[in-house]
Amino acid sequence: MSLIDETIARIRPLDAEAIAAATARQLDLTKPPGSLGPLEDVSIQLCGIAGTCPAPVPEPATVVVFAADHGVQKHAVSPWPQEVTAQMVANFLAGGAVINVLSRHAGARVEVVDVGIATPVPPVPSEATLLTRTVRPGTADLSSEPAMTLEEARRAVEVGIEVAQEAIAGGARCLLMGDMGIGNTTASAALIAAFTGAGADEVTGRGSGLAPEAVRRKAALVAQALDLHRPSASDGLATVAAIGGLEHAAMAGMLLAGAAAGIPVIVDGVIADAGALVAQALCPESISYAIAGHRSAEPAAALALERLGLRPLLSLDLCLGEGSGAVLALPIVQAAAKVLAEVATFSSAGVSDAGVPKD
Amino acid sequence: MSLIDETIARIRPLDAEAIAAATARQLDLTKPPGSLGPLEDVSIQLCGIAGTCPAPVPEPATVVVFAADHGVQKHAVSPWPQEVTAQMVANFLAGGAVINVLSRHAGARVEVVDVGIATPVPPVPSEATLLTRTVRPGTADLSSEPAMTLEEARRAVEVGIEVAQEAIAGGARCLLMGDMGIGNTTASAALIAAFTGAGADEVTGRGSGLAPEAVRRKAALVAQALDLHRPSASDGLATVAAIGGLEHAAMAGMLLAGAAAGIPVIVDGVIADAGALVAQALCPESISYAIAGHRSAEPAAALALERLGLRPLLSLDLCLGEGSGAVLALPIVQAAAKVLAEVATFSSAGVSDAGVPKD
Repeated sequence: MSLIDETIARIRPLDAEAIAAATARQLDLTKPPGSLGPLEDVSIQLCGIAGTCPAPVPEPATVVVFAADHGVQKHAVSPWPQEVTAQMVANFLAGGAVINVLSRHAGARVEVVDVGIATPVPPVPSEATLLTRTVRPGTADLSSEPAMTLEEARRAVEVGIEVAQEAIAGGARCLLMGDMGIGNTTASAALIAAFTGAGADEVTGRGSGLAPEAVRRKAALVAQALDLHRPSASDGLATVAAIGGLEHAAMAGMLLAGAAAGIPVIVDGVIADAGALVAQALCPESISYAIAGHRSAEPAAALALERLGLRPLLSLDLCLGEGSGAVLALPIVQAAAKVLAEVATFSSAGVSDAGVPKD
Repeated sequence: MSLIDETIARIRPLDAEAIAAATARQLDLTKPPGSLGPLEDVSIQLCGIAGTCPAPVPEPATVVVFAADHGVQKHAVSPWPQEVTAQMVANFLAGGAVINVLSRHAGARVEVVDVGIATPVPPVPSEATLLTRTVRPGTADLSSEPAMTLEEARRAVEVGIEVAQEAIAGGARCLLMGDMGIGNTTASAALIAAFTGAGADEVTGRGSGLAPEAVRRKAALVAQALDLHRPSASDGLATVAAIGGLEHAAMAGMLLAGAAAGIPVIVDGVIADAGALVAQALCPESISYAIAGHRSAEPAAALALERLGLRPLLSLDLCLGEGSGAVLALPIVQAAAKVLAEVATFSSAGVSDAGVPKD
């Protein structure tokens, strides 16, 4: 059996008994029922994932930033040159990027994986770890040919699985999806169109700063790719191979591996949403292990989250990527777990439960 | 000069030079301009508040929970009995409530102020500090008489100022507004109607779990109070005296004192929004020092935030109060400050700034 099939075979539905216990416990905490909204849902989901109530706090956490380049950038779908992928990876390794600052703040570790960077990474003294698992040095131009072969897509998913398994073996108990790749909102838009059935105009946005005229050209390239490849929403591997990125395939693999190991995975913005859709196509149950950290400002993000059935914790109109939305949501996810575990019950605290509806 | 006038006289507009420096620095950080959305705005505001760029990280933080009772609860505007105010205060002091768990998680200190609890607080071993500054043991029924006298309202504002000044003297560099008081969403709804001009139906919600029929009765009481007292949007003190709560007056005082001392104040949900509106009526400039942590699920919250001109960081549909929405937002506020202070610049990191629009 392949590593992908083996991983999928280990993904189980969430633990129904732990979910029932957590649901009952929420009603007995000293607060009005439902008053913590989605924090209550997350706390119950974490119990279902862990198979215990209360669930352990999801820590330590590791943000895995999958970096890869995109052939479609030859059409200047981003105002930033392709070399910025490698330059930003050097910035991650030096600890100077937003994801480094936010991760230090949240107590999360950062790992950077080269799954397909096209240009050399400038040498730097390293705070974060660079894992070199290059499948190919960037995709081909998805608007005129398949972005990669089916075998390369499979290998990129395996890289995601392997990196996640290594992080879990190293102690990680919460995984966060991050990305870096100039041009990757174009591939994300194409993937989200393919998996949701939305049109190219609906899914294409400004990315990291395109002018309106350039957004129209970008949407035309997405439409051209969909026309050329006619991707199938039910074939995750073929679709990511035709119109996706190496990082999308790897992010899907990480989500599969987290689910197989019973570890929650926090999804970042629109790139990670697209990666999660690939995982959903490969194994729908994997999404039970996903928590949406943030709804990106990109128009495709809301469509993707709806298809995934995930409600984002944050809606801050970020459009940075790197895992920034996921790591900003991490303290909220951990807080949700602590509330269920630590808040006093009505009887233990001597507080009247008169306001709790009885049935 | 009274303590209130003295405090207001010390409130200055934000530092324009620090704001200009922070705005320019944001453009030089290694990320697409604007990609961190409201985090960029908060980082710039913090510089304006501190008068330096970058601004110090707003820590340590203190959540001040102002507890008070409401005469209008004799109409059962909440399904919880009035004694729950005192019982929950005991829960805060024992460290078992949601605000305790969330504050420990965020590294914030909790202080509880009795500004008008109607029933005795059960004795408990104390983790948090109870400050007994009772102005009166709960308000009168705002639907049939003034909630308190003008002098009592003034005294409650002064309690908020004094408590904030003591917290700042004790080292706090960020203040968070919290509340506890059975019936306080009714007074909040009345205040928000008075300050925004909205109707009783628009501002009245389920509070901590009312059935739809009871919400209609609650709205009728709010309408009756507005009819009876005809509160003026421009007279903060008279309005809070007629239809508000002791905690609203105290929260307004805390915001004034934070602004006077150049300390950011994070506003919680709908109760704190109403308190901030009182502060805005007393001194519009004080709102420059406020950061909206959360938009409550109560319908009045969005109206209040619009009138305050504040954009909430979180929209989690919480309806708990206690300061829970403010303390959940605290890590995001601190992250915003750290991003501006710590992220590398394009030139220092060797990253191309080709995507930054030049003018």
